[in-house]
Order: sequence, then structure tokens, then C-alpha cells
Amino acid sequence: MVEPADKDAVLLADALEDDVRPDDRIDDERHDEENRLKPEYVSAVREALEEGEKGAVYDLVEPLHPADIADLLELLDRDEREQLATAITDLMTVDVIAELNDFVRGEMMTALPAQAVALIAQQLETDDAVQLLEDLDEEDQKAIIANLQPETQVVVNSALSYPEETAGRLMNRHVMAVPEHLTVGDLIDYLRENGDFTHDFHEVFVIDAAHHPVGSCALNWILTAPRWVRLTDIMKRDQTLIPVTMDQEEVALMFQKYALISAAVVDESGRLVGQMTVDDVVHIISEEAGEDALLMSGAGDGDINEPIREAYSSRVRWLVANLGTAVVASGIIALFGAAIEELVALAVLMPIVASIGGNAGTQTMAVSVRAIATNQLTRSNTKRILWREMRVAMLNGVTVAVLIGIAAGLLFSPMMGAVIAAAMVINIAVAGLAGVLVPVIFERLGQDPAVASSVFVTMITDSMGFFAFLGLAVASGLASL
Amino acid sequence: MVEPADKDAVLLADALEDDVRPDDRIDDERHDEENRLKPEYVSAVREALEEGEKGAVYDLVEPLHPADIADLLELLDRDEREQLATAITDLMTVDVIAELNDFVRGEMMTALPAQAVALIAQQLETDDAVQLLEDLDEEDQKAIIANLQPETQVVVNSALSYPEETAGRLMNRHVMAVPEHLTVGDLIDYLRENGDFTHDFHEVFVIDAAHHPVGSCALNWILTAPRWVRLTDIMKRDQTLIPVTMDQEEVALMFQKYALISAAVVDESGRLVGQMTVDDVVHIISEEAGEDALLMSGAGDGDINEPIREAYSSRVRWLVANLGTAVVASGIIALFGAAIEELVALAVLMPIVASIGGNAGTQTMAVSVRAIATNQLTRSNTKRILWREMRVAMLNGVTVAVLIGIAAGLLFSPMMGAVIAAAMVINIAVAGLAGVLVPVIFERLGQDPAVASSVFVTMITDSMGFFAFLGLAVASGLASL
Repeated sequence: MVEPADKDAVLLADALEDDVRPDDRIDDERHDEENRLKPEYVSAVREALEEGEKGAVYDLVEPLHPADIADLLELLDRDEREQLATAITDLMTVDVIAELNDFVRGEMMTALPAQAVALIAQQLETDDAVQLLEDLDEEDQKAIIANLQPETQVVVNSALSYPEETAGRLMNRHVMAVPEHLTVGDLIDYLRENGDFTHDFHEVFVIDAAHHPVGSCALNWILTAPRWVRLTDIMKRDQTLIPVTMDQEEVALMFQKYALISAAVVDESGRLVGQMTVDDVVHIISEEAGEDALLMSGAGDGDINEPIREAYSSRVRWLVANLGTAVVASGIIALFGAAIEELVALAVLMPIVASIGGNAGTQTMAVSVRAIATNQLTRSNTKRILWREMRVAMLNGVTVAVLIGIAAGLLFSPMMGAVIAAAMVINIAVAGLAGVLVPVIFERLGQDPAVASSVFVTMITDSMGFFAFLGLAVASGLASL
Repeated sequence: MVEPADKDAVLLADALEDDVRPDDRIDDERHDEENRLKPEYVSAVREALEEGEKGAVYDLVEPLHPADIADLLELLDRDEREQLATAITDLMTVDVIAELNDFVRGEMMTALPAQAVALIAQQLETDDAVQLLEDLDEEDQKAIIANLQPETQVVVNSALSYPEETAGRLMNRHVMAVPEHLTVGDLIDYLRENGDFTHDFHEVFVIDAAHHPVGSCALNWILTAPRWVRLTDIMKRDQTLIPVTMDQEEVALMFQKYALISAAVVDESGRLVGQMTVDDVVHIISEEAGEDALLMSGAGDGDINEPIREAYSSRVRWLVANLGTAVVASGIIALFGAAIEELVALAVLMPIVASIGGNAGTQTMAVSVRAIATNQLTRSNTKRILWREMRVAMLNGVTVAVLIGIAAGLLFSPMMGAVIAAAMVINIAVAGLAGVLVPVIFERLGQDPAVASSVFVTMITDSMGFFAFLGLAVASGLASL
């Protein structure tokens, strides 16, 4: 089966030429110590663009890694991006496009004719092509797909038939899959003859006649085993299989939990249809872990490249919801109008109780949401965590209450000090309870706890803060209704 | 150089036996659809523990993957953990220990004698051993290190000499490094003869005589190239090198940006001293991305397994800081005491302005902090992002102002509607400004923007909310000072 060495040499030389990788090094001329492009460098590119010196722009950008060219495009203003793209046409490789921020890429693609986008999609890895297309509106999508080669059309349409953010959308369809009867030697001979250097792989999947994965071999095991050993003897049989319909968040947790480098994706009938690799999953992990902070604050996608209209629509919805909860809290204050009129110090102090309660609630909520997202807080330990948070809340409550109680006692009256201290303890305890229970309840109802929890927790701590403080003030005789 | 096949077979069989991997499969008996241990399963283990049926406990736990055993230990209460560990002694492998939550592991290790911990550390990969030791207090650490084998002592002490959260601490010292003159065939022969199956590797590093890395070969390239090809002809020369002193956050961003699977770590003189692999970096990425939500809310480490004393001390510090800012805001209300006494509706409505401003500020801040953390917001685009956020803020401000203005106009008076609407627009605009500028300024001062921004943003939006609303009320003649 082995071909003459000359043919191999030619194939290899070809392959290497096609896959020359650009400079990965961190150089100090263009990058700062945190590997960001230096502002001076970006300014230099900007000036050259402004003066229309395409040659100078090209020389500046040429040494960059594709990921850095993508960063550069993101840093520039919208009109500068187009100028740059035209100045460095042949550096605008598919690697650059694949690395671009979704919003920036969408914007740039919308500016191009469908044929041009199709040409780019054609050269991308299948998963990157799907990612490029899925963000465009349906009309553009159809026009571009119509311009793809028939085989790519099939692949892209099949990927788009799966829901967004599932393995079926995200997987790469290039898999190194081999039949069960091969030995290590057979596999190496096969790879030397047929392997191409354009698709990296980290694992060889062994499949049976029905295309079901039966095991997987790490490449270092293959390199270390003698030629005559059967793959079925060194493969790991109990591999982690990803169903095509699995959500990306689950996929990310599986990769983390089992320290995977790649994993086979199987369709409904258990046949191998693709793989997920860790370099793609890394982006998902970062996205999923980072988005909780954004979701909890109601900042939606929270990407600085998101179009203003989308940022507005996702954020204003949240502010309006919060307006509703703020009005509820105001209603409680209104109940105590006469008391405030009698003792205006109540109006001065009441926001303190509400505000600290809100902070304490947000702390507990952030911890609970993160623990739920990482599968650490489940039905099996909810009671223990609730009890733990209550104890932390009592310690926090007493500390803050003593401080504010003494201050208010000295500035106003001892009774005022006692009232605000008691209200603070109550509100921080309620905050601790709400901070655990609200996210847990949302999770059990099948809602994302990061999205809705914070509106409810704030409403509870604001209302309870005003109610406890003003109510105790009236009950203690400081003021009357 | 090739040994007789029989010897190979024996070696291989030995190696395989040592490295049999437990079941990676998701089974439906013990896991729910999100790959968490089912509450019924955890209850069954708990009951068996309570009844002292060690055999039953063992049978229940035996089929679990080490990562799942670690999860199970985390879900149990403190005293149950010790009971479980004694019931399944031989299943408590180093893989389980390595997967345990830092706090839970620390707690369990503190309960063991130094010799026993040393025995565990001895079997762990060097990076895991260091991670186990670094969380213990210095005395325990020294006692355990003294019980380690001399070579391990050298490795551990060298790792501990680097600051926490740097590559020098986190790297694995097992590297597949080979000299420059090897061909693909030489390398494969060497691996077949000397390779062991206990250390996985994803890349072969080529080093010169001075131990400097000169390139790296992906394993799939080695498998695909003919035997006679020199490694120096297929290796990637411009690899990403990680300095030992690089912070883990930078390491994580490098892996993400350049889609790395592994990378060489070099010391100050450029010599190869270890490697970082993506499966370790995945944990760092998840930690770094997730911690911003926790830091912004002042929840510290925010781990549900953190001891209560530590959780209290990190959270209460934050609440006390917020108490200070709440008092500042109260001081502003106090300035307008007479106006509130005259028109108690001001006290009812003022928290709405402060609260929505606080929400808008948190949204912008969450977006900015995330963009700074992912190197997307730099000096080169700060002005553009600030302008973008101001436009979003104006849209949000006008929308919310119209809603609350109409409501307050109808419920109180048209002038009151106008005053609260104007105050809302001002406060949301200020919130947008503060939400970008505060984190950017902290970043430039070398502070972590996630930690301190939120106290300042809240102080600004609270104070401005009360000041704008009450000030406009007085200015418009609704009430007098």
C-alpha cells in the first residue's frame, strides 16, 4: 500500500505550503504586555488608512496573526473597517473571518454580495461556515446558500436544521473515523497515504459497520503502541458521546468535567456524524460563564459590538421591569406618608436599609446562580446551602446593624438607632433567603435563573427594607400613621 | 532499536492495566438529563451511609467516573464525606482528589495526617500536587513536603516559588521534548520503546542543545508524515511560548485567541520547563469569566463550599463599603429635608429615580467590565464605546422618563411628572457615563475593574438620582427648602 517516497514528498510539500501558519509569537513592537494591540500601533494603522496609503497599511498589518487582524478590525470604527478590508484583501483570510466578533462579522458580511460571502463560506470549516450564516437574516442566508457548492449546501442545511446553540449546529463534520479491524500499523500507513494536513484531529474514532462509534484512540497512544497492535485493543471504549441535540452549555460542562480534548457527536440513531473539539468549546465556556454577569444585570448579549438598537431593546425591557418593582416599593413608602411627614428623618434613612439589603441579596444571588450554572447546587444540597447562606446573612446583618445602629442612635435618637438596626437584620436575612430561593425556584421552573432572579430579589429587598424600617418606626412610637 | 514483540506486548499490557479508564458514559440510572447526579441516587448513598452498610455504599459508587465521585462528595454534608471516603477507600483515587472543589479538598486533606497527604501528592501529576498543597496553611504544607520523595520535593518547591495563579505554578512539568535531529521514524521508534501510557501529550516539542524550544509538532502531523521526514521540516516554528511568570488570566486569553491545545512554558532564560494544556486552561477560563459576576456583586470567591468565616469576611467588607456610599446618598436627602416635609410625595418617588439609575449603571458597567476582561475595550476604542453607551443611555432614559413621567403626572401633578422625567433622563445619562468611565479608570490605575467599580457606580447613581430629583423639585417650585 505504501507509495514511492517521491510521491509522498510532493504531497507533503504541497500540504505544507497550503498550511503555512502565520506568526504566533508575541512581539513587543505591536503588542503590550497583556497581548493587546498597542494603541500607538492602532493609531499608525488609522493614520495610514486616513491618508489612503494602502501599501503602508498592508506592511503594517502583514506580520499579524489572523486572530490579531480580527482584533484590529474590531477596534476600528465601522467605516475604517471597510477601508482596512479593501487595503489588505489577500490577508483577509478565512481564519480572520472565523475569529471576528459575531456582530462585526455580520455587519461586514451584510455589506458584501451573496456570491462573495458564499465564496468565503465555502473555504471555512463547516462549523465556522454555519456560524457565519446563522447570524444573517433568512433572506441573505438563502441567497448565500444558493451560491454554495452542492455538497456544502447539504452540510449547511443539515446544520441549520438543528436548534441554535446545540451540538448539531456547532460540531465539525470532519472526523477521523476508521473501521474496527485496523492495527496501529494499518492506520499509520493509511494516514501517510491519504491524510491531509488541512484538518487537524486530536483523536481517531473507531466505528463499526453501522457507523456507530465503538471507541476512540488518543493520538499519543497510537504513536506509543507497536505497529501490530489492534486499535480495538488500545482504544478507550467508554467514551463520552455528545447527542446532536445537546445544548452548548451541557457540552461545555461535559468537556470541563471529563477534561476532554475532543468528543464524538452522534445522531438520534447513534451514528457518528461529527465531533466537537476543545478549541471551539473554550469559546462556549467563556461565553456561558461570562454571560451570567450580563444577564443578571439585564445587559442582554452585552457585547460592545452589538448594534445600538439591539442593545437598547434588550436593556430597556429590563429597566421597565425594574420600574415596575420600584413602583411597588414606592407604594409601600406611600402607606407610611403620614409617618414621614411627622418625622422626615425616616425619609433620610430608609434608602440605606433598602440599598444594603439589595446588595446582600445580589451577593447571595450571584453565588447561587454560579453554583446552579456549574451543576454544584442541586436538589441534593439545596437545604444545606440555604442554611449556610442564612448563617452568613445573620453575621453580615448583625455587623452592619451595629454600625448603622450606633451612628443613627448618636445622630438622631437611641430609638431610631434600635429601629434601623432591627430593620437591617431583618432585611439582610430576607435578602439571604431570597438570594438562594429565587434562583432555585426559577431553575426548577425551567427558567434561566440568571435572567429573571435579580428583578425579583431587588423587589423583595427594596419592599422589605422600606416596610421593616417604616413599620418598626411606627410600631416603636417614633412616628404615627 | 526495536525490541522483540513479546517484550512490547508485556509492556503494553502492563501500561494498559495501570491506565484502565472508568466509565465515561452518561447512564440514565444515576444521572439526570443535565448530567448531574440524580437526587434519588444521592439519597440512596446517604441512606446506605447512615445505616453503615459499607458494602452497599461501595456497590453504589463503584460504577461512577472519578469526576462524579468528586461531585458526590461535594454534594454530601461534611461528616457524610468522611464516612463515604472510608467506605470507598480504593475508589478514592488521585483522579477523584484532583477533581474535588478546592475548599472541599482542603478540608478533607486537613483531616488527614501529613504522611497520608504526601502519599497522595506523590501520585498526582505535578500541577495537581501543587494545587493540592498551595491551599493548605504553611505549617501543614511544610510537614507534607518533608514527607515527599526528594525529586518531588524539588518540583513542588520550585512551583511554589512562583506567585499564585502564574504559569510557573500551574504548568505540568511532564513534557514530550525531543532533539532537533530526529526524523518522524526516529520519534515513533523512540516512543514505542520508551513511551509510557500514564502521561497524555498533545504535542511534541522540539528543543535545541540549550533546551530552548525551536518548534512544536502536532501529533496528527507526525502520524500523517512519512518516516524519513525530519521533525524540523514539519514542526510549527512560530509557536506561542508562555513565560513562567505569566498570569493565568493572560494564559487563558492566549489559549482562546490562538485556539491552542497545549503550549510550552519557558523560564527567564527561554528554556523549556513545562507545558500548559487546554484541559487545565478550561478551568481557568471558566473561573476567570465567572468570577466577574461574583466580584461585581462583592461576593468574593463566591464558592458555595467556601468556609462561612471566609464568606462572611469577604462579603461584609463590601456591605460596609456600600453602607458608606448609602450614607453619602442619605446626606443628599437630608439637605432637602424641608422640601420633603412640605411635599411627602417626594419621599415616595425619589427611590425610583435612584433605583433605575443604579440598574442602568450596572448594565453598562457589566458590559464594560466584560469587554475589558476579554481585551475588547482598550485605549484604541474607549471614545467610540463611550459614545455608543451614551446613545443607548439616551434612548433608555427617554423611554423610562416618558413612562414614569406620565404615571406621576396623572397620580400627582403635571409638574411632578415633568420633574421626575427630567431627573430620570439625567440620572440614566450619568449612569451610562459612570458605567464606562469608572471601570476604564480602575483598569488604567492597575486595579481590577470588576472589584471596585460597582461601589462607585452605585454611589454616583444613588446620589445623582436623589440630587437631580429633589433639586429639580425645589427649582421648579414644587417644594421649597
